[in-house]
Amino acid sequence: MKIAVLAGGVGGARFVRALTEVVDPRNVTVIANVGDDLEVHGLHVSPDLDTLLYTLSGLGDDERGWGREGETWNASETIELLGGETWFRLGDRDIGLHLVRSEALRAGEPLSAVTARVARSVGLEITLLPATDDRLRTKIRTPAGELDFQDWFVARGHRDQVNEVVYEGARTARPAPGALEALQAAELIVVAPSNPFVSIRPILAVRDIRTAIEARRDRVVAVSPLIGGRAVKGPADAMFTSLAGGTGAAQVTDCYKGLIGALVLDEADADDVDDVAARGVQPLVTTTLMSDPDARRALVETVLGLVPAG
Amino acid sequence: MKIAVLAGGVGGARFVRALTEVVDPRNVTVIANVGDDLEVHGLHVSPDLDTLLYTLSGLGDDERGWGREGETWNASETIELLGGETWFRLGDRDIGLHLVRSEALRAGEPLSAVTARVARSVGLEITLLPATDDRLRTKIRTPAGELDFQDWFVARGHRDQVNEVVYEGARTARPAPGALEALQAAELIVVAPSNPFVSIRPILAVRDIRTAIEARRDRVVAVSPLIGGRAVKGPADAMFTSLAGGTGAAQVTDCYKGLIGALVLDEADADDVDDVAARGVQPLVTTTLMSDPDARRALVETVLGLVPAG
Repeated sequence: MKIAVLAGGVGGARFVRALTEVVDPRNVTVIANVGDDLEVHGLHVSPDLDTLLYTLSGLGDDERGWGREGETWNASETIELLGGETWFRLGDRDIGLHLVRSEALRAGEPLSAVTARVARSVGLEITLLPATDDRLRTKIRTPAGELDFQDWFVARGHRDQVNEVVYEGARTARPAPGALEALQAAELIVVAPSNPFVSIRPILAVRDIRTAIEARRDRVVAVSPLIGGRAVKGPADAMFTSLAGGTGAAQVTDCYKGLIGALVLDEADADDVDDVAARGVQPLVTTTLMSDPDARRALVETVLGLVPAG
Repeated sequence: MKIAVLAGGVGGARFVRALTEVVDPRNVTVIANVGDDLEVHGLHVSPDLDTLLYTLSGLGDDERGWGREGETWNASETIELLGGETWFRLGDRDIGLHLVRSEALRAGEPLSAVTARVARSVGLEITLLPATDDRLRTKIRTPAGELDFQDWFVARGHRDQVNEVVYEGARTARPAPGALEALQAAELIVVAPSNPFVSIRPILAVRDIRTAIEARRDRVVAVSPLIGGRAVKGPADAMFTSLAGGTGAAQVTDCYKGLIGALVLDEADADDVDDVAARGVQPLVTTTLMSDPDARRALVETVLGLVPAG
């Protein structure tokens, strides 16, 4: 059974790891967000691709959720000593990947190709694709003006109110090679429990990806990133409030309007099932917090239960 | 008393450090070799400037002679894991400097400006200048063909015989801002005990630098890099044999023909003083191995003794 997953960083990576504990990873294609990619000291950093790479290869710092285990920060310390900017700190092991990727990109290799190469090197069995090889950047419109995603998220600690999220470059971005094929071949398409506004929508902003998903809506299941109206981590709940007018399952469902056939909710949100069903989307209730092996397996099996038999 | 020094990496840095133990570093300008600069994974590396920066700031690994003290190699380990090239290994602390420099160069800042900025950040009191802001690269012609300097030196372990050394880009390279002024203002110009072929001549290959030095030949003293016909470190002796036909003081003197007024020789080479004098160059004999504080001071005072009184 072939499965395609749309995923952002930490939540997406943990979901994919849980998924591959149950299904053959060789049947899984992950289409990852690149909207929060950035250049740091001339290095191309792809935070979500990297979190996926590190989490799925076992190289990641599991407690922190991102970055490498056993990381050191000596390059960053030197940058600081030399008066350089360090608002986006890069670990030394992490820099090794950024150097390899940046050099390849500068030499004209597409992001998808260098990602595939790196994924093979660290032993990944899933197929990991960036949503696009083209430049697509999430911008946050706030009362203080339009900010680059990482400027808003990291440098300013996502304290500015979000009036709108836009995806620069999306209009002309083409899906990375293999992405449409994976979506068309998948018996199941999963939208991981990532932040819809800054992790999933930048993927959906690639027109042909959105169209491919719309066409297969009955095979698409999203996992809500909210539990009892709260994000496990990060600013998703505040963004739901300011951008969708609430943090209920209704708002999550509306967020993926026309794109999903089912929505997995946490037990804490069981009261909201009617709001989901009323929108023509099948509600499924389980534990969505991936806190222990049993909970992870229950979530994955709920998601997999969506696949029409045969 | 203003002093200008032409210097390569390890030997040059140690000499300048010894010099600044005796004279006020604010009166010293070092004009450094950039012929062995290279790009590694998209980073601009200036090995000789960096050795000078590290040695003179106290950040360097004194035993090794190059690189940072307390260095770690985690980025490099990742690059290796990802199948990248690691023949020129970069330390993590070192990478911090390369990132700052490479970003500045890409933004259009000249090498001399970013070098000055970095030198200030690490507390250097001397003026440190690259010979040129233009691209100048030392190439080694060998039976195996023409090799980039670092390819010959590091990757191939300087095992290929050297038929000729050429300085690509030298014809059009202009001195870095301040270099000519420093040479003109100096009461003493010192050629450090660096490898003449690959450390000093790339500097002299910048036409206006050579002309400025020729014009002040009586103020120029070179310290021989050979002791008893042997290099303290590196391939200088082998290069003298293949390129100059011998490793005596005569060959060292000829190497700087028309450029120096005096040559400092080690006591081991005292028998060669006549060869030097016969070439119109004043021989000075002392201990040139900078092994202990007394020896270093003796060398520096011998060099300083060259300055005409008044």
